[in-house]
Formats: sequence, C-alpha cells, structure tokens
Amino acid sequence: MRVPFEILQAEFKRVLLKVNFTEEKAEQCATTFAENSRDGVYTHGLNRFPVFVEFVKDGLVKPNAEPTLERGFGTLEQWNGNLGPGILNAQFCMQRAISFAQEHGIGCVALKNTNHWMRAGAYGWQAAEAGMIGICFTNTIANLPPWGGLDPRLGNNPLVIAVPRAGGHVVLDMAISQYSVGKLNQYKNNGNEALPLPGGYDKAGNLSTDAAAILESKRLLPVGFWKGSGLSLVLDLLATVLSQGNSTAKITESERESGVSQVFICIKPENNHATATAIEEIIAYTKTSSPEQEGTGIYYPGENTLRTREKSMKEGVLVDERIWNKVLSL
Amino acid sequence: MRVPFEILQAEFKRVLLKVNFTEEKAEQCATTFAENSRDGVYTHGLNRFPVFVEFVKDGLVKPNAEPTLERGFGTLEQWNGNLGPGILNAQFCMQRAISFAQEHGIGCVALKNTNHWMRAGAYGWQAAEAGMIGICFTNTIANLPPWGGLDPRLGNNPLVIAVPRAGGHVVLDMAISQYSVGKLNQYKNNGNEALPLPGGYDKAGNLSTDAAAILESKRLLPVGFWKGSGLSLVLDLLATVLSQGNSTAKITESERESGVSQVFICIKPENNHATATAIEEIIAYTKTSSPEQEGTGIYYPGENTLRTREKSMKEGVLVDERIWNKVLSL
Repeated sequence: MRVPFEILQAEFKRVLLKVNFTEEKAEQCATTFAENSRDGVYTHGLNRFPVFVEFVKDGLVKPNAEPTLERGFGTLEQWNGNLGPGILNAQFCMQRAISFAQEHGIGCVALKNTNHWMRAGAYGWQAAEAGMIGICFTNTIANLPPWGGLDPRLGNNPLVIAVPRAGGHVVLDMAISQYSVGKLNQYKNNGNEALPLPGGYDKAGNLSTDAAAILESKRLLPVGFWKGSGLSLVLDLLATVLSQGNSTAKITESERESGVSQVFICIKPENNHATATAIEEIIAYTKTSSPEQEGTGIYYPGENTLRTREKSMKEGVLVDERIWNKVLSL
Repeated sequence: MRVPFEILQAEFKRVLLKVNFTEEKAEQCATTFAENSRDGVYTHGLNRFPVFVEFVKDGLVKPNAEPTLERGFGTLEQWNGNLGPGILNAQFCMQRAISFAQEHGIGCVALKNTNHWMRAGAYGWQAAEAGMIGICFTNTIANLPPWGGLDPRLGNNPLVIAVPRAGGHVVLDMAISQYSVGKLNQYKNNGNEALPLPGGYDKAGNLSTDAAAILESKRLLPVGFWKGSGLSLVLDLLATVLSQGNSTAKITESERESGVSQVFICIKPENNHATATAIEEIIAYTKTSSPEQEGTGIYYPGENTLRTREKSMKEGVLVDERIWNKVLSL
C-alpha cells in the first residue's frame, strides 16, 4: 500500500502533538520520520514510529527537552541531549558541526544523553545538503559479540560518511552488523529463507545463512569478522570519550535503549571544478567494472535512495498496512 | 631469526644514506621501518624495505622532497607531498593535525602526491602518543572489485582510528580487503592452506577460502561485502576531494603505486578521570563475553601489538632471513 508523503507527515505530526510535542518540534520530527520511509528506510520511518511514541509515553524520550552546551574548546563541543527526541538532538548537533566547518574548515560536535536518531543516514544527507562532508556515528545497546566471544558486548554502532555531489549526494550509512536483527527477523518470518551471504554463527559455531539459527545464538556477524568487531569498539570509545556520555556497556544496563552517545563531524570541501570532476571520475571508474551478473549494476552508496525517493514522491510512500492502521488509530 | 632492533634500524639507515637520504631523513625513515617490524607488521617493515629502495632508485620516491602547503582554511589544510618518502610526509601531516587539535580541539590535514606510508597504524600510534584521537586513511591502487563487479576498481584504502590510553593505546588499523594480497600469497605458498574465513570469490563466483583461486580471479572480498565496497569508495572520495590529489582511478593508470592521497584528522579528548574510566570500562565489558573457544581471548585493537613489541625488544625483531641478507647486501 502506498500513501502520499504529505499524509504520512501529517499523521505523524497529529500523533506527536497528542503526546505533547510543540507545534515546531512535532513538524520537524514528523518530517524526518516521513522522509525516512520516503527514502526506503522503512525500519526507521513508519515502522519505528509506534515504538517511538511508546518511548515518549513511558518518559524515556522527553518531547520538549532541548540540548544544552556542556563544554566548548575551539571547534570541538560537547552537548547534553537531556533525553530529548534523538532526531531533533542529532539535527541540532549536525547543524553546529556544519557551522563550524563553514567558518573554520572542520568541526566536531559530540552529544550525550540523547535517544535513538532513527535513520543514521539522515544526518549525512543534512550535511551534504549544506555542501559539507559529514561523518557521524552513534553507539547503541550491545547486540554483537566481540570477535572471539559468544555474548553480545558491542553495539552495531551505525557509521555515516556523506560527500556532497551536484548529481546526488554520496551517503554511506552502514551499521557494523552485517545484517540487522530486524533484517534477520524479516528472513525468519519469510519461511526462514536463506540469507544471500553469511550473517552470523549458529549455536554449533558454524558460519550460517540461517536467520533463525543466528537469532537463536545471538551471534550476529560484524562486517569483516574481526575488523568490524574492532571498528565497533573504537566507535564506542570515540562516542563515549568525546561526549563524556554513556558507553554501550552503560546503555545495556537498562534493557531499553536510551541515553546514547553520538559524534558529528563536518569538513568543508573545496567547492571548485576539480572537486566536481574528481567525484564524477571516481564514480564513473567504479562503474566500469564488468557486472558480476548480466543486467545488474554497480551503485554508489545513496544512489538507490534517490530512485526510491523519486518513486515515493510520484506514487506515494510504501507502507506496511498493519502498522499504518496502528498509527491512524493512535 | 631475530635481530636486535638497533641493528635493524642501523642497517636501514646505512642503505638510505647510500641512496642520498640526508642524515636526519635516513634516521627518521629507518626508525619507522624498524618499528614496523618490531611491532609485528613485517609486511611493511623489513619485507617492504627492498621495494622502497627500488622505488627511490627508480625516481618514484624523491628522498629529500619536502611537503609544501597548497591551501589553508581554518584548521583544514592541503599539503603537497612532492613525491617524497611516504613515511616522512605522513608523520609531518599527522604532526600538523596534532597541533591543530591541541590548539582548536580538532584539525584536518589532507596530503596529495605522496607515496606509500607503509604501516598505516604507525600514524595512529603517533597521534595517540601525543594524547590525541587520530583518524587517518589513504587511497591506493585498485585491488578490489566494487560490489556487483568483477574487475578491481577500488583500493583497499587502509583506515586507522587511534584512542590514547594510559595502559596501552587502542589502535585500529584495517584495510578494506578482508585479506591482503600479501596474506593470500602467504596461504597459497604454504601449500594453499584454507583461509580461516572466506576471503573472496573463485572464478566460478563462489565465496571461497582457497587463496590461489581468489588470487586467480582477483575478486578479493571487501569487509562486509557491499558495506566495505561502499566504505572504500567514500574513503577514496574524501582523500581525493580534501587533498585535491589523485584518486584510485588516477593512481591505477600507472602500474606502480605512487602519488597517493591521504587524510589525517586529530581530535583532543578531555584528559580527565571520566575519560580514563570510560575507556577501561568499555574494554573490560567487552572482555566479559564468554570466549568462543577455551583458552582464547578477546583483544582490543592494538593489544597484541604491545605484546609483540615487548618480545621484539627483549629477544630481537623477527626477520625473514632471505630478505634480511638482501638488505645487508644493499
């Protein structure tokens, strides 16, 4: 089922106003939720909206809390999110980083005590729209075992790197787990269809494409095996140290993910012909690799997002009817 | 065979002086080559030294070229490496980034027209030794197919993230290929022993642990399949755009890797009790995951480096006797 973008946005806003968001904050949050679904990231658009509303009702997300400055040193700042909505805190901090980059070439804003920012890539798009290279990441509740271990101790800590480009921004948005728990559940619920590539280990310790077996063992695979395990750990260190906030260890103490730590870095690229040419050359060269299968393509990160966005705006945003009806009834 | 660190360093220096390095530059380069072997990164220590000397003799590396400033904007700078030794250019630029971070919290130095920096992690250790969080990466010649493609079009673009820590720095040093060409050759030459985990595809397009088959197909695996492919692409974009230098596409035009682009970012962590405590908590929590196999451990990135370093300083640095004799004869 498809729903016009404006309807989606208006419904989200209606519900947020009911749970005490101000007019402006409801508008801003509703827009991002609708945009996430519009761009094809359904898991962090409509599908996550009812959970977000639950978190607000349960007091884990404070609808009208505003970020406050804890410490500034040059173009490096620490902000306290005061458990406000993750989307609003993240947009605010990325905007600070954009301003630093505009004035000084580079800036870094770290944020503690914030909530789930939904789609990580949204803040990469925000930086790129402002003409900036954007790098951001968040820590999360523990959901990945470290390399060599059986029990989850690392977050899937999504990492975003965005490069502004006239013909469509390049936005990498990658979690450290090869497949998210949500994706594994999708395969499991779909007759436990085999994953296209190994996604974790089964209880016997074998690399597996069996989503149900991986969910049972809780041994999701980090990208690149030991490499992703190390990357997740250092991203948690950076987020925690720079924000002086909660680590994955601390976040995991409570079972509901709240009070996470994030980092936003912006860098100003030279806005000249050489930059534009280099970006096009890199993308064009990558696409000259012969396709593995006839008829399939080679895409840069963010390329498919633009296609989905266009289709959503023309034909309406794809929604899960059951969840859509739930939102309509909120 | 083991050789005392000082002997290794002195031999490297002797050879570099013969190929027209100044006293100071020979000392600095020789020390880093010796340290790379000392820390267990033999591929970018002794083993690579004869190739480096070839590059100098062939004029690809200019022994006494110095980096020059191309452009500065706030705490973001572009330097031209003028094809000088990669180690010296990289150390210079990381030192600039360290100074920026000390004064302004964060700084970014991009470097074009430089040469192979040998061990990527060396510059992470450099930043951490100065008390800074260090992030750096380089582009390389194309050696990985993009996701969905058959021909190499992406570099393995090593990425380093270092966090200073009193009890031993945390230094992640990861190339985007799951196994390097050097590592695959090692397995191939060792009776083509199976890789512990899939490292690429064979010619038939099957995920494989057969090093010889992967080397034949040239389809090395990026970490995390499509995710590493995207990460490699964006790191090349960042290095090329920020330095206004050569992309992987341009570097690959000549068959010998020279004139690469690099980025060095430093951030100043708050030097307080909370930072130290958070780092220890994160590492300790990670290590509470039950080990996958009895007797094996869970290590943070850089932990094994310290063990190897200690052993090298006590018992001498492990050298490949054939290569060591070659260096002695240079």
